[in-house]
Amino acid sequence: MAIDERMEGIEAVFLDLDGTIYLGGELIEGASEFLDRLDHRGVKRFFLSNNSSRSVSQYLRKLTRLGIPAREEEVLLSTHDLLNWLEAEGIDDTFLVGTQGMGEMLEARGIRTQSKSPQAVVLGYDTEITYQKLSDASMYLHAGVPLVASHPDLVCPSPVGGLPDVGAYLSLFETTTGVRPVKVCGKPNPSMILGMIGELGLDVECCAMIGDSIYTDMAMADASGVHGILVLSGEATAEDAATSNVRMSLIAPSVDSLCR
Amino acid sequence: MAIDERMEGIEAVFLDLDGTIYLGGELIEGASEFLDRLDHRGVKRFFLSNNSSRSVSQYLRKLTRLGIPAREEEVLLSTHDLLNWLEAEGIDDTFLVGTQGMGEMLEARGIRTQSKSPQAVVLGYDTEITYQKLSDASMYLHAGVPLVASHPDLVCPSPVGGLPDVGAYLSLFETTTGVRPVKVCGKPNPSMILGMIGELGLDVECCAMIGDSIYTDMAMADASGVHGILVLSGEATAEDAATSNVRMSLIAPSVDSLCR
Repeated sequence: MAIDERMEGIEAVFLDLDGTIYLGGELIEGASEFLDRLDHRGVKRFFLSNNSSRSVSQYLRKLTRLGIPAREEEVLLSTHDLLNWLEAEGIDDTFLVGTQGMGEMLEARGIRTQSKSPQAVVLGYDTEITYQKLSDASMYLHAGVPLVASHPDLVCPSPVGGLPDVGAYLSLFETTTGVRPVKVCGKPNPSMILGMIGELGLDVECCAMIGDSIYTDMAMADASGVHGILVLSGEATAEDAATSNVRMSLIAPSVDSLCR
Repeated sequence: MAIDERMEGIEAVFLDLDGTIYLGGELIEGASEFLDRLDHRGVKRFFLSNNSSRSVSQYLRKLTRLGIPAREEEVLLSTHDLLNWLEAEGIDDTFLVGTQGMGEMLEARGIRTQSKSPQAVVLGYDTEITYQKLSDASMYLHAGVPLVASHPDLVCPSPVGGLPDVGAYLSLFETTTGVRPVKVCGKPNPSMILGMIGELGLDVECCAMIGDSIYTDMAMADASGVHGILVLSGEATAEDAATSNVRMSLIAPSVDSLCR
Protein backbone atom coordinates (compact mmCIF):
# COMPACT_ATOMS: atom_id res chain seq x y z
CA MET A 1 0.00 0.00 0.00
CA ALA A 2 1.39 3.39 -1.01
CA ILE A 3 0.60 6.46 1.08
CA ASP A 4 0.77 10.17 0.50
CA GLU A 5 0.65 13.18 2.82
CA ARG A 6 -3.05 12.64 3.49
CA MET A 7 -2.12 9.38 5.20
CA GLU A 8 -5.35 7.67 4.29
CA GLY A 9 -5.73 4.16 5.69
CA ILE A 10 -3.36 4.82 8.60
CA GLU A 11 -4.88 3.85 11.95
CA ALA A 12 -1.95 4.36 14.30
CA VAL A 13 1.11 6.61 14.18
CA PHE A 14 4.32 6.38 16.15
CA LEU A 15 5.83 9.79 16.59
CA ASP A 16 9.39 10.66 17.37
CA LEU A 17 9.54 13.66 19.70
CA ASP A 18 12.69 15.79 19.44
CA GLY A 19 13.00 17.11 15.89
CA THR A 20 9.51 15.88 14.96
CA ILE A 21 7.02 17.27 17.50
CA TYR A 22 9.29 19.74 19.27
CA LEU A 23 12.80 21.08 18.89
CA GLY A 24 14.42 21.46 22.31
CA GLY A 25 11.85 23.46 24.27
CA GLU A 26 9.66 24.70 21.36
CA LEU A 27 6.82 22.99 19.48
CA ILE A 28 7.43 22.47 15.74
CA GLU A 29 5.10 24.82 13.85
CA GLY A 30 1.79 23.11 13.16
CA ALA A 31 2.50 20.10 15.41
CA SER A 32 -0.41 20.82 17.72
CA GLU A 33 -2.89 21.14 14.82
CA PHE A 34 -1.47 17.94 13.26
CA LEU A 35 -2.19 16.06 16.49
CA ASP A 36 -5.73 17.51 16.50
CA ARG A 37 -6.27 16.24 12.94
CA LEU A 38 -5.13 12.73 13.96
CA ASP A 39 -7.47 12.82 16.92
CA HIS A 40 -10.36 14.06 14.78
CA ARG A 41 -9.85 11.20 12.36
CA GLY A 42 -9.59 8.63 15.17
CA VAL A 43 -5.95 7.77 14.46
CA LYS A 44 -4.15 6.48 17.55
CA ARG A 45 -0.87 8.24 18.31
CA PHE A 46 2.12 7.18 20.37
CA PHE A 47 5.14 9.23 21.33
CA LEU A 48 8.50 7.48 21.02
CA SER A 49 11.85 8.46 22.43
CA ASN A 50 15.24 6.84 22.84
CA ASN A 51 16.11 9.39 25.50
CA SER A 52 16.22 7.26 28.66
CA SER A 53 17.28 10.17 30.88
CA ARG A 54 13.62 11.07 31.46
CA SER A 55 10.87 8.91 32.94
CA VAL A 56 7.36 8.66 31.43
CA SER A 57 6.04 11.09 34.07
CA GLN A 58 8.74 13.59 33.12
CA TYR A 59 7.75 13.26 29.44
CA LEU A 60 4.07 13.72 30.26
CA ARG A 61 4.91 16.89 32.18
CA LYS A 62 6.98 18.21 29.26
CA LEU A 63 4.22 17.41 26.73
CA THR A 64 1.59 19.06 28.95
CA ARG A 65 3.81 22.15 29.27
CA LEU A 66 3.91 22.31 25.45
CA GLY A 67 0.09 22.08 25.28
CA ILE A 68 -0.06 18.36 24.36
CA PRO A 69 -1.90 16.47 27.07
CA ALA A 70 -1.02 12.78 26.68
CA ARG A 71 -1.71 9.57 28.56
CA GLU A 72 0.91 7.37 30.17
CA GLU A 73 0.29 4.49 27.74
CA GLU A 74 0.91 6.79 24.79
CA VAL A 75 4.59 7.25 25.70
CA LEU A 76 6.97 4.51 24.51
CA LEU A 77 10.57 4.93 25.66
CA SER A 78 13.71 2.94 24.98
CA THR A 79 13.47 2.22 28.71
CA HIS A 80 10.30 0.19 28.02
CA ASP A 81 12.09 -1.83 25.37
CA LEU A 82 14.89 -2.39 27.88
CA LEU A 83 12.45 -3.42 30.61
CA ASN A 84 10.85 -5.98 28.28
CA TRP A 85 14.27 -7.34 27.38
CA LEU A 86 15.35 -7.61 31.04
CA GLU A 87 12.12 -9.41 31.92
CA ALA A 88 12.44 -11.80 28.98
CA GLU A 89 15.99 -12.60 30.14
CA GLY A 90 14.85 -13.08 33.75
CA ILE A 91 17.11 -10.28 35.00
CA ASP A 92 15.98 -8.42 38.13
CA ASP A 93 19.33 -7.62 39.77
CA THR A 94 21.13 -4.83 37.96
CA PHE A 95 23.65 -2.08 38.47
CA LEU A 96 22.29 1.01 36.74
CA VAL A 97 24.31 3.80 35.16
CA GLY A 98 21.36 6.08 34.56
CA THR A 99 19.30 8.90 35.98
CA GLN A 100 17.05 8.79 39.02
CA GLY A 101 14.01 9.00 36.68
CA MET A 102 15.14 5.90 34.80
CA GLY A 103 15.93 4.13 38.07
CA GLU A 104 12.40 4.76 39.29
CA MET A 105 10.94 3.18 36.14
CA LEU A 106 13.07 0.05 36.68
CA GLU A 107 12.36 -0.18 40.41
CA ALA A 108 8.60 0.20 39.71
CA ARG A 109 8.83 -2.99 37.64
CA GLY A 110 10.63 -4.80 40.47
CA ILE A 111 14.14 -4.49 39.03
CA ARG A 112 16.83 -3.62 41.55
CA THR A 113 19.23 -0.97 40.26
CA GLN A 114 21.91 -0.93 42.98
CA SER A 115 22.51 -4.66 43.33
CA LYS A 116 25.82 -5.77 44.85
CA SER A 117 25.72 -8.94 42.71
CA PRO A 118 24.15 -7.67 39.45
CA GLN A 119 23.17 -9.95 36.57
CA ALA A 120 23.69 -7.02 34.21
CA VAL A 121 25.16 -3.54 34.10
CA VAL A 122 22.41 -1.35 32.60
CA LEU A 123 23.45 1.82 30.79
CA GLY A 124 21.00 4.64 30.09
CA TYR A 125 21.46 8.24 29.05
CA ASP A 126 22.93 9.37 32.34
CA THR A 127 22.84 13.13 32.75
CA GLU A 128 23.56 12.63 36.45
CA ILE A 129 26.82 10.73 35.95
CA THR A 130 29.37 10.41 38.78
CA TYR A 131 32.83 8.88 38.85
CA GLN A 132 31.58 6.41 41.45
CA LYS A 133 29.03 5.06 38.96
CA LEU A 134 31.65 4.83 36.19
CA SER A 135 34.05 3.01 38.55
CA ASP A 136 31.50 0.58 39.99
CA ALA A 137 30.23 -0.28 36.50
CA SER A 138 33.82 -0.84 35.29
CA MET A 139 34.46 -3.13 38.26
CA TYR A 140 31.41 -5.28 37.39
CA LEU A 141 32.35 -5.35 33.70
CA HIS A 142 35.91 -6.47 34.57
CA ALA A 143 34.29 -9.24 36.63
CA GLY A 144 32.37 -10.48 33.59
CA VAL A 145 28.91 -9.00 34.24
CA PRO A 146 27.26 -8.36 30.84
CA LEU A 147 26.43 -4.84 29.65
CA VAL A 148 23.06 -3.80 28.20
CA ALA A 149 22.29 -0.31 26.87
CA SER A 150 18.93 1.40 26.53
CA HIS A 151 19.66 2.82 23.06
CA PRO A 152 22.50 3.30 20.57
CA ASP A 153 22.53 7.08 20.06
CA LEU A 154 26.04 8.52 20.16
CA VAL A 155 24.89 12.04 20.96
CA CYS A 156 21.82 13.88 22.11
CA PRO A 157 21.10 16.79 19.73
CA SER A 158 21.37 20.28 21.23
CA PRO A 159 21.65 23.81 19.87
CA VAL A 160 25.39 23.80 20.72
CA GLY A 161 26.04 20.46 19.00
CA GLY A 162 25.56 16.85 20.07
CA LEU A 163 26.08 16.10 23.75
CA PRO A 164 27.43 12.75 25.07
CA ASP A 165 24.70 10.08 24.95
CA VAL A 166 24.72 6.32 25.58
CA GLY A 167 27.01 5.58 22.61
CA ALA A 168 29.65 7.93 23.97
CA TYR A 169 29.54 6.21 27.37
CA LEU A 170 29.82 2.86 25.55
CA SER A 171 33.11 4.09 24.05
CA LEU A 172 34.37 5.03 27.51
CA PHE A 173 33.49 1.62 28.92
CA GLU A 174 35.00 -0.25 25.97
CA THR A 175 38.26 1.69 26.33
CA THR A 176 38.27 1.02 30.08
CA THR A 177 37.28 -2.66 30.12
CA GLY A 178 37.26 -3.96 26.55
CA VAL A 179 33.59 -4.86 27.07
CA ARG A 180 30.90 -4.24 24.43
CA PRO A 181 27.17 -4.49 25.13
CA VAL A 182 25.43 -7.85 24.65
CA LYS A 183 22.27 -5.90 23.77
CA VAL A 184 21.39 -2.36 22.73
CA CYS A 185 17.65 -1.64 23.07
CA GLY A 186 15.51 1.21 21.74
CA LYS A 187 15.11 2.47 18.19
CA PRO A 188 15.93 1.07 15.58
CA ASN A 189 14.84 -2.24 17.22
CA PRO A 190 11.38 -3.14 15.84
CA SER A 191 10.53 -4.37 19.37
CA MET A 192 10.09 -0.68 20.27
CA ILE A 193 6.70 -0.70 18.43
CA LEU A 194 5.78 -4.26 17.42
CA GLY A 195 4.52 -5.11 20.92
CA MET A 196 2.05 -2.21 20.86
CA ILE A 197 0.96 -2.96 17.28
CA GLY A 198 0.24 -6.53 18.39
CA GLU A 199 -1.73 -5.32 21.41
CA LEU A 200 -3.80 -3.06 19.16
CA GLY A 201 -4.42 -5.96 16.76
CA LEU A 202 -3.38 -3.82 13.79
CA ASP A 203 -1.65 -4.71 10.56
CA VAL A 204 1.75 -3.03 10.09
CA GLU A 205 0.47 -1.64 6.76
CA CYS A 206 -1.99 0.50 8.75
CA CYS A 207 0.74 2.00 10.94
CA ALA A 208 3.28 4.75 10.32
CA MET A 209 6.45 5.83 12.07
CA ILE A 210 7.09 9.56 11.72
CA GLY A 211 10.52 10.85 12.64
CA ASP A 212 13.48 13.02 11.71
CA SER A 213 16.23 10.41 11.95
CA ILE A 214 17.01 8.01 9.13
CA TYR A 215 19.29 5.69 11.11
CA THR A 216 16.90 5.21 14.05
CA ASP A 217 13.30 6.19 13.09
CA MET A 218 13.30 5.18 9.41
CA ALA A 219 15.52 2.13 9.96
CA MET A 220 13.03 0.90 12.57
CA ALA A 221 10.07 1.53 10.23
CA ASP A 222 11.90 -0.39 7.50
CA ALA A 223 12.73 -3.30 9.81
CA SER A 224 9.24 -3.56 11.27
CA GLY A 225 7.26 -3.13 8.05
CA VAL A 226 5.32 0.01 9.05
CA HIS A 227 5.30 3.06 6.79
CA GLY A 228 8.29 5.30 7.37
CA ILE A 229 7.57 9.03 7.06
CA LEU A 230 10.70 11.16 7.27
CA VAL A 231 10.21 14.77 8.34
CA LEU A 232 12.92 17.30 7.51
CA SER A 233 12.31 19.41 10.62
CA GLY A 234 15.17 17.90 12.62
CA GLU A 235 18.27 15.83 12.02
CA ALA A 236 18.04 14.51 8.45
CA THR A 237 18.22 16.63 5.30
CA ALA A 238 16.68 15.91 1.87
CA GLU A 239 20.23 15.09 0.74
CA ASP A 240 20.64 12.51 3.52
CA ALA A 241 17.37 10.91 2.43
CA ALA A 242 18.43 10.86 -1.23
CA THR A 243 21.67 9.02 -0.45
CA SER A 244 20.23 6.58 2.10
CA ASN A 245 19.51 2.89 1.48
CA VAL A 246 16.75 2.82 4.08
CA ARG A 247 13.29 2.28 2.59
CA MET A 248 10.82 5.11 3.33
CA SER A 249 7.19 5.63 2.30
CA LEU A 250 7.25 9.40 2.27
CA ILE A 251 9.35 12.48 2.91
CA ALA A 252 7.64 15.62 4.25
CA PRO A 253 8.93 19.05 5.30
CA SER A 254 7.35 18.58 8.75
CA VAL A 255 4.22 17.14 10.41
CA ASP A 256 2.48 20.39 9.44
CA SER A 257 1.85 19.07 5.92
CA LEU A 258 0.57 15.65 7.02
CA CYS A 259 -2.95 14.23 7.49
CA ARG A 260 -4.65 17.19 5.79
CA MET B 1 77.61 3.42 30.53
CA ALA B 2 76.11 0.13 31.77
CA ILE B 3 74.61 -0.06 35.24
CA ASP B 4 73.72 -2.87 37.61
CA GLU B 5 71.55 -3.03 40.73
CA ARG B 6 74.13 -1.07 42.74
CA MET B 7 73.38 1.90 40.49
CA GLU B 8 76.89 3.31 40.76
CA GLY B 9 77.37 6.60 38.94
CA ILE B 10 73.71 7.56 39.19
CA GLU B 11 73.21 11.05 40.62
CA ALA B 12 69.46 11.50 40.22
CA VAL B 13 66.55 9.07 40.06
CA PHE B 14 63.05 9.64 38.81
CA LEU B 15 60.63 7.36 40.60
CA ASP B 16 57.23 6.29 39.49
CA LEU B 17 54.87 6.04 42.47
CA ASP B 18 51.99 3.56 42.10
CA GLY B 19 53.41 0.08 41.52
CA THR B 20 56.97 1.27 42.26
CA ILE B 21 56.99 2.98 45.67
CA TYR B 22 53.51 2.02 46.83
CA LEU B 23 50.66 -0.17 45.68
CA GLY B 24 47.34 1.56 46.31
CA GLY B 25 47.57 2.51 49.99
CA GLU B 26 50.56 0.35 51.03
CA LEU B 27 54.32 0.91 50.72
CA ILE B 28 56.17 -1.63 48.55
CA GLU B 29 58.37 -3.73 50.88
CA GLY B 30 61.79 -2.15 51.26
CA ALA B 31 60.81 1.12 49.54
CA SER B 32 61.49 3.23 52.60
CA GLU B 33 64.95 1.70 53.12
CA PHE B 34 65.71 2.15 49.41
CA LEU B 35 64.93 5.86 49.70
CA ASP B 36 67.19 6.04 52.77
CA ARG B 37 70.03 4.45 50.79
CA LEU B 38 69.60 7.01 47.99
CA ASP B 39 69.65 9.80 50.54
CA HIS B 40 72.73 8.41 52.26
CA ARG B 41 74.58 8.27 48.95
CA GLY B 42 73.51 11.82 48.05
CA VAL B 43 71.41 10.72 45.04
CA LYS B 44 68.64 13.20 44.25
CA ARG B 45 65.19 11.63 43.95
CA PHE B 46 62.02 12.84 42.27
CA PHE B 47 58.55 11.32 42.40
CA LEU B 48 56.69 11.16 39.09
CA SER B 49 53.05 10.52 38.43
CA ASN B 50 50.70 10.79 35.47
CA ASN B 51 47.73 10.86 37.84
CA SER B 52 46.47 14.42 37.46
CA SER B 53 43.52 13.89 39.80
CA ARG B 54 45.70 14.88 42.75
CA SER B 55 47.57 18.12 43.36
CA VAL B 56 51.19 18.27 44.59
CA SER B 57 49.94 19.07 48.12
CA GLN B 58 47.71 16.01 48.02
CA TYR B 59 50.67 13.86 46.93
CA LEU B 60 52.88 15.30 49.68
CA ARG B 61 50.20 14.44 52.24
CA LYS B 62 49.92 10.88 50.92
CA LEU B 63 53.72 10.40 50.93
CA THR B 64 53.95 11.77 54.48
CA ARG B 65 51.19 9.40 55.58
CA LEU B 66 53.27 6.52 54.19
CA GLY B 67 56.35 7.72 56.12
CA ILE B 68 58.07 9.42 53.17
CA PRO B 69 58.46 13.11 53.87
CA ALA B 70 59.10 14.85 50.54
CA ARG B 71 59.50 18.42 49.33
CA GLU B 72 57.23 20.15 46.86
CA GLU B 73 59.93 20.39 44.20
CA GLU B 74 60.50 16.63 44.37
CA VAL B 75 57.05 15.87 42.96
CA LEU B 76 56.73 15.99 39.15
CA LEU B 77 53.19 15.44 37.84
CA SER B 78 51.77 15.24 34.34
CA THR B 79 50.02 18.43 35.41
CA HIS B 80 53.45 20.17 35.48
CA ASP B 81 54.21 18.99 31.96
CA LEU B 82 50.80 20.29 30.93
CA LEU B 83 51.40 23.64 32.64
CA ASN B 84 54.71 24.04 30.81
CA TRP B 85 53.03 23.23 27.51
CA LEU B 86 50.19 25.70 28.13
CA GLU B 87 52.68 28.43 29.03
CA ALA B 88 54.83 27.70 25.97
CA GLU B 89 51.71 27.97 23.80
CA GLY B 90 50.63 31.21 25.50
CA ILE B 91 47.36 29.70 26.72
CA ASP B 92 45.88 31.11 29.91
CA ASP B 93 42.14 30.81 29.20
CA THR B 94 40.98 27.22 29.49
CA PHE B 95 37.95 25.11 30.22
CA LEU B 96 39.07 22.33 32.57
CA VAL B 97 37.58 18.87 32.80
CA GLY B 98 39.49 17.88 35.91
CA THR B 99 39.43 17.76 39.68
CA GLN B 100 39.41 20.72 42.05
CA GLY B 101 42.99 19.78 43.06
CA MET B 102 44.14 20.03 39.44
CA GLY B 103 42.19 23.26 38.98
CA GLU B 104 44.00 24.81 41.94
CA MET B 105 47.39 23.96 40.40
CA LEU B 106 46.39 25.67 37.13
CA GLU B 107 44.86 28.71 38.82
CA ALA B 108 48.01 29.08 40.98
CA ARG B 109 50.00 29.53 37.74
CA GLY B 110 47.52 32.15 36.51
CA ILE B 111 45.60 29.87 34.15
CA ARG B 112 41.83 30.35 34.20
CA THR B 113 39.97 27.03 34.25
CA GLN B 114 36.36 28.19 33.79
CA SER B 115 36.80 30.57 30.87
CA LYS B 116 33.73 31.35 28.76
CA SER B 117 36.00 31.81 25.72
CA PRO B 118 38.67 29.17 26.28
CA GLN B 119 41.76 28.80 24.07
CA ALA B 120 41.84 25.10 25.00
CA VAL B 121 39.75 22.41 26.62
CA VAL B 122 42.05 20.79 29.20
CA LEU B 123 41.36 17.20 30.19
CA GLY B 124 42.79 15.67 33.35
CA TYR B 125 41.99 12.53 35.31
CA ASP B 126 38.62 13.76 36.54
CA THR B 127 37.33 11.72 39.46
CA GLU B 128 34.79 14.50 40.11
CA ILE B 129 33.15 14.35 36.67
CA THR B 130 29.69 15.82 36.10
CA TYR B 131 27.47 15.80 33.02
CA GLN B 132 27.67 19.59 32.97
CA LYS B 133 31.45 19.41 32.48
CA LEU B 134 31.11 16.76 29.75
CA SER B 135 28.49 18.90 27.97
CA ASP B 136 30.32 22.20 28.23
CA ALA B 137 33.55 20.60 27.00
CA SER B 138 31.67 19.00 24.07
CA MET B 139 30.17 22.38 23.19
CA TYR B 140 33.64 24.00 23.06
CA LEU B 141 35.07 21.09 21.04
CA HIS B 142 32.20 21.36 18.53
CA ALA B 143 33.06 25.06 18.25
CA GLY B 144 36.65 24.22 17.28
CA VAL B 145 38.45 24.81 20.59
CA PRO B 146 41.50 22.45 20.68
CA LEU B 147 41.73 19.65 23.23
CA VAL B 148 44.82 18.96 25.36
CA ALA B 149 45.13 16.06 27.81
CA SER B 150 47.38 15.73 30.83
CA HIS B 151 48.41 12.13 30.11
CA PRO B 152 47.53 9.19 27.86
CA ASP B 153 46.66 6.44 30.39
CA LEU B 154 43.48 4.58 29.44
CA VAL B 155 42.86 3.30 32.94
CA CYS B 156 44.00 3.91 36.49
CA PRO B 157 45.05 0.58 38.08
CA SER B 158 42.93 -0.58 41.02
CA PRO B 159 42.44 -3.86 42.90
CA VAL B 160 39.09 -4.35 41.09
CA GLY B 161 40.57 -3.71 37.62
CA GLY B 162 41.41 -0.55 35.70
CA LEU B 163 39.12 2.43 36.28
CA PRO B 164 38.34 5.06 33.60
CA ASP B 165 41.30 7.45 33.18
CA VAL B 166 42.04 10.25 30.69
CA GLY B 167 42.22 7.89 27.70
CA ALA B 168 38.71 6.61 28.41
CA TYR B 169 37.36 10.18 28.55
CA LEU B 170 39.20 10.87 25.27
CA SER B 171 37.19 8.03 23.68
CA LEU B 172 33.97 9.56 24.99
CA PHE B 173 34.85 12.98 23.56
CA GLU B 174 35.95 11.55 20.21
CA THR B 175 32.67 9.63 19.89
CA THR B 176 30.72 12.76 20.85
CA THR B 177 32.55 15.36 18.78
CA GLY B 178 35.01 13.61 16.47
CA VAL B 179 37.77 15.65 18.12
CA ARG B 180 41.14 14.17 19.10
CA PRO B 181 43.66 15.94 21.32
CA VAL B 182 46.26 18.20 19.72
CA LYS B 183 48.62 17.31 22.58
CA VAL B 184 48.81 14.61 25.25
CA CYS B 185 51.25 15.53 28.03
CA GLY B 186 52.81 13.44 30.82
CA LYS B 187 54.79 10.21 30.58
CA PRO B 188 56.09 8.99 28.11
CA ASN B 189 56.94 12.55 26.97
CA PRO B 190 60.64 13.20 27.76
CA SER B 191 59.61 16.74 28.70
CA MET B 192 58.33 15.24 31.99
CA ILE B 193 61.98 14.97 33.20
CA LEU B 194 64.30 16.74 30.76
CA GLY B 195 63.48 20.18 32.21
CA MET B 196 64.52 19.09 35.69
CA ILE B 197 67.67 17.33 34.39
CA GLY B 198 68.61 20.57 32.64
CA GLU B 199 68.01 22.60 35.80
CA LEU B 200 70.23 20.22 37.78
CA GLY B 201 72.94 20.48 35.12
CA LEU B 202 73.25 16.69 34.95
CA ASP B 203 74.07 14.39 32.07
CA VAL B 204 71.27 11.97 31.16
CA GLU B 205 73.75 9.10 31.62
CA CYS B 206 73.85 9.93 35.35
CA CYS B 207 70.06 9.73 35.70
CA ALA B 208 67.69 6.79 36.00
CA MET B 209 63.96 6.40 35.64
CA ILE B 210 62.57 3.63 37.85
CA GLY B 211 59.04 2.44 37.16
CA ASP B 212 56.70 -0.50 36.69
CA SER B 213 55.23 0.46 33.30
CA ILE B 214 56.99 -0.31 30.04
CA TYR B 215 54.81 1.87 27.83
CA THR B 216 55.05 5.01 29.96
CA ASP B 217 58.05 4.80 32.37
CA MET B 218 60.47 2.80 30.22
CA ALA B 219 59.36 4.41 26.96
CA MET B 220 60.09 7.82 28.50
CA ALA B 221 63.51 6.65 29.74
CA ASP B 222 64.28 5.33 26.27
CA ALA B 223 63.17 8.55 24.57
CA SER B 224 65.03 10.85 26.95
CA GLY B 225 68.30 8.88 27.14
CA VAL B 226 68.28 8.22 30.91
CA HIS B 227 68.70 4.70 32.28
CA GLY B 228 65.44 2.80 32.39
CA ILE B 229 65.07 0.47 35.38
CA LEU B 230 61.94 -1.66 35.23
CA VAL B 231 60.62 -3.00 38.53
CA LEU B 232 58.30 -6.01 38.47
CA SER B 233 56.35 -4.92 41.56
CA GLY B 234 53.43 -3.46 39.61
CA GLU B 235 52.04 -3.50 36.08
CA ALA B 236 54.70 -5.17 33.89
CA THR B 237 55.79 -8.81 34.13
CA ALA B 238 59.13 -10.35 33.17
CA GLU B 239 57.35 -11.73 30.09
CA ASP B 240 56.16 -8.25 29.08
CA ALA B 241 59.75 -7.04 29.37
CA ALA B 242 61.09 -9.95 27.32
CA THR B 243 58.73 -9.24 24.45
CA SER B 244 59.03 -5.45 24.47
CA ASN B 245 61.03 -3.39 21.99
CA VAL B 246 61.63 -0.62 24.51
CA ARG B 247 65.30 -0.27 25.50
CA MET B 248 65.93 -0.74 29.26
CA SER B 249 69.14 -0.70 31.31
CA LEU B 250 68.00 -3.10 34.00
CA ILE B 251 65.11 -5.21 35.29
CA ALA B 252 64.71 -5.68 39.06
CA PRO B 253 62.11 -7.47 41.20
CA SER B 254 61.44 -4.21 43.11
CA VAL B 255 63.29 -1.16 44.46
CA ASP B 256 64.22 -3.34 47.46
CA SER B 257 67.13 -4.84 45.51
CA LEU B 258 68.47 -1.53 44.18
CA CYS B 259 71.29 0.76 45.34
CA ARG B 260 72.71 -1.74 47.82
